[in-house]
Amino acid sequence: MAVNLPLPVAAELKPVAGIQLGHAEVGVRKANRKDLLVMKLADTATVAGVFTTNRFCAAPVQVCKAHLEGVRISESGIRALVINTGNANAGTGEAGLVNANATCSALAELLGCATSQILPFSTGVILEPLPVDRIKAGLPQAIANLQEDNWYKAAEAIMTTDTQPKAASRTVAINGAQITLTGISKGAGMIKPNMATMLGFLAMDARVTQSVLDHMVKEAADKSFNCITIDGDTSTNDSFMLIATGAAPLEINDVDSPEYAALAEAVIDLSQQLAQMIVRDGEGATKFIAIAVEDGETVEECRKIAYSIGHSPLVKTAFFASDPNLGRILAAIGYAGVDDLDVGKLNLYLDDVWVARNGGRNPDYREEDGQRVMKQSEITVRVKLARGDAQATIWTCDLSHDYVSINADYRS
Amino acid sequence: MAVNLPLPVAAELKPVAGIQLGHAEVGVRKANRKDLLVMKLADTATVAGVFTTNRFCAAPVQVCKAHLEGVRISESGIRALVINTGNANAGTGEAGLVNANATCSALAELLGCATSQILPFSTGVILEPLPVDRIKAGLPQAIANLQEDNWYKAAEAIMTTDTQPKAASRTVAINGAQITLTGISKGAGMIKPNMATMLGFLAMDARVTQSVLDHMVKEAADKSFNCITIDGDTSTNDSFMLIATGAAPLEINDVDSPEYAALAEAVIDLSQQLAQMIVRDGEGATKFIAIAVEDGETVEECRKIAYSIGHSPLVKTAFFASDPNLGRILAAIGYAGVDDLDVGKLNLYLDDVWVARNGGRNPDYREEDGQRVMKQSEITVRVKLARGDAQATIWTCDLSHDYVSINADYRS
Repeated sequence: MAVNLPLPVAAELKPVAGIQLGHAEVGVRKANRKDLLVMKLADTATVAGVFTTNRFCAAPVQVCKAHLEGVRISESGIRALVINTGNANAGTGEAGLVNANATCSALAELLGCATSQILPFSTGVILEPLPVDRIKAGLPQAIANLQEDNWYKAAEAIMTTDTQPKAASRTVAINGAQITLTGISKGAGMIKPNMATMLGFLAMDARVTQSVLDHMVKEAADKSFNCITIDGDTSTNDSFMLIATGAAPLEINDVDSPEYAALAEAVIDLSQQLAQMIVRDGEGATKFIAIAVEDGETVEECRKIAYSIGHSPLVKTAFFASDPNLGRILAAIGYAGVDDLDVGKLNLYLDDVWVARNGGRNPDYREEDGQRVMKQSEITVRVKLARGDAQATIWTCDLSHDYVSINADYRS
Repeated sequence: MAVNLPLPVAAELKPVAGIQLGHAEVGVRKANRKDLLVMKLADTATVAGVFTTNRFCAAPVQVCKAHLEGVRISESGIRALVINTGNANAGTGEAGLVNANATCSALAELLGCATSQILPFSTGVILEPLPVDRIKAGLPQAIANLQEDNWYKAAEAIMTTDTQPKAASRTVAINGAQITLTGISKGAGMIKPNMATMLGFLAMDARVTQSVLDHMVKEAADKSFNCITIDGDTSTNDSFMLIATGAAPLEINDVDSPEYAALAEAVIDLSQQLAQMIVRDGEGATKFIAIAVEDGETVEECRKIAYSIGHSPLVKTAFFASDPNLGRILAAIGYAGVDDLDVGKLNLYLDDVWVARNGGRNPDYREEDGQRVMKQSEITVRVKLARGDAQATIWTCDLSHDYVSINADYRS
């Protein structure tokens, strides 16, 4: 059902020296599916992340933040990440924190490191106790499976309502060093990241100092995972992690260097692909929609308007129906909360079709032209505000019957 | 399909002395349906209104505001309202204003008053030219139908995707005068009024001075139409009008008088009923949900959290499925934008069932208790923030397959 999203080819996912991946089936929620993933890192690795802004941030997110803070103070790096699906360990109070820490302790013992060197992640149903004993019991199996070329299975292991695994690779040559980047992501619903997506992990073999990696992960998230929305629901567990294993002969220690710029470009490019994969596989998605708002006073107001369009159930159902009911887009622009917007100067395009001109219907607009674009599986909505030079683009999908079915049935 | 919303009984809708209603079938969009309504007012009438905050406010809304402003300056009162369905006359630029004014002029000529004494309203599809000639041609038929006991047909004449007419009456004795109030409303989608509902008209036979009526309409809207949401889409045409015909022997000229309080109470009560009718007949609605947020610091933050819950597609589909997937409610609270919210003090109830306690699952909560409440057709979600004394309640409905069907097919 995903929109123009081919299955990853396992052989094309490049191993990243310095990171091994191992999965297990532990029956967190359902039997006979990969639901536990361990990523083991080289001693030289640095890790940085961005997390949900949801006030109900899940226990593992709280533990991740604390452990990453500890890394900055102690110089003892992160040695592994552990991810379970089926249960988000969110809305679980003190018991949730105990369980997230217990998962870390168990893995630390098996790997011979400190609890604070493990980062835990959970995704799935909220408000239910984490079956921590099953997770702990499955860790040896995951460790036994650790391999560098396990990215495809890793992508499968973090799926929830995703219809397919999401993974991609890049290589980039910088100063004669061939750098490999491979990432995985999962999404499908409860997607309106305010800081990051549901879950995204991107590893590369460059060596990057902690402060530079912290900068890079924010830059990449702002240009990728923070530009997507499926249903406007910001999850309790959103996390995007950037891992630099340090196995390749390239060190980046200055955000103003050309090497940083080259590596950041590749990271952003891969992050955008991983983020867009989440939208393409959005729950019930049949269309992939880019919404570009241009000529605004500020990026902030461009994003407000783009998200207002991207969240409107009326706009999203019109896309599902391939119905050029484009007044709904104007209405969504109008209630976006840009109080001094002069709609009389606004222009709206659907791909190459000029729909609204100076706030009203373009006299040259023909319904059949709008219809032609609306029937496509990929559509760009372009709004020109005539207020300044700022612009923002977000990516979203339509709202279909299947979205309702999936979310009405998710737990059953 | 509406939720616990019996059809109005025509004989129980009380005529309001000083206002006559006449409808016509003019084929604005579809043939053979009432799509034009004229309300003719006594010379003694005063009229006040609140309108959408959408920047793309429709041409008739702009004309209404100008004519109401004129009334305040000129002392020549509003003589009639004219409402069409099938076309919103929104996103129509200058031509839209010309058409809205032309409608007023034509009716003014027939009634022998000034154009500025007419208020126009439109509801329906956005971004299409108003067929003003058909509307003008139908006005004599509507005038020929003018009667005081025409409220049921008036409610039918303003329907769009509503499955049934919405109307109700009240009487209240104040200082020995029997005051009659009757109102109609229409909604069904694009409902998240920021100032008023799609369309609501409430008439009463008291005499109320303009400034007092202006005050009363805002108070009533804030406690009724501004507390509902179906899909979060604030329409371009939302209008709520309060009409005091002045035919009864009671004059209200002081907002601090006991008479004002008594009349306002009846107006608010009827406004709430009319607003809730819109939710009960929300597009595809199968459940009526009240969301009460209590013990907040400010009313504003309580409303933010209530709307965040009420707009979440994941929460709304869980209600549709009768699935007590209540973590979704916690997630929506968490991303409502109340930055210093301490979720560790938060309690959540579904009717009488205590679901979340101090931010986590209540140890005494049993899934079957949540399930029992979720199966009801009317549910109250209660969130207690433990931050102060403010509270707010909004009313909404679930998100069903039929919402998608209705909005994917609306224009076809």
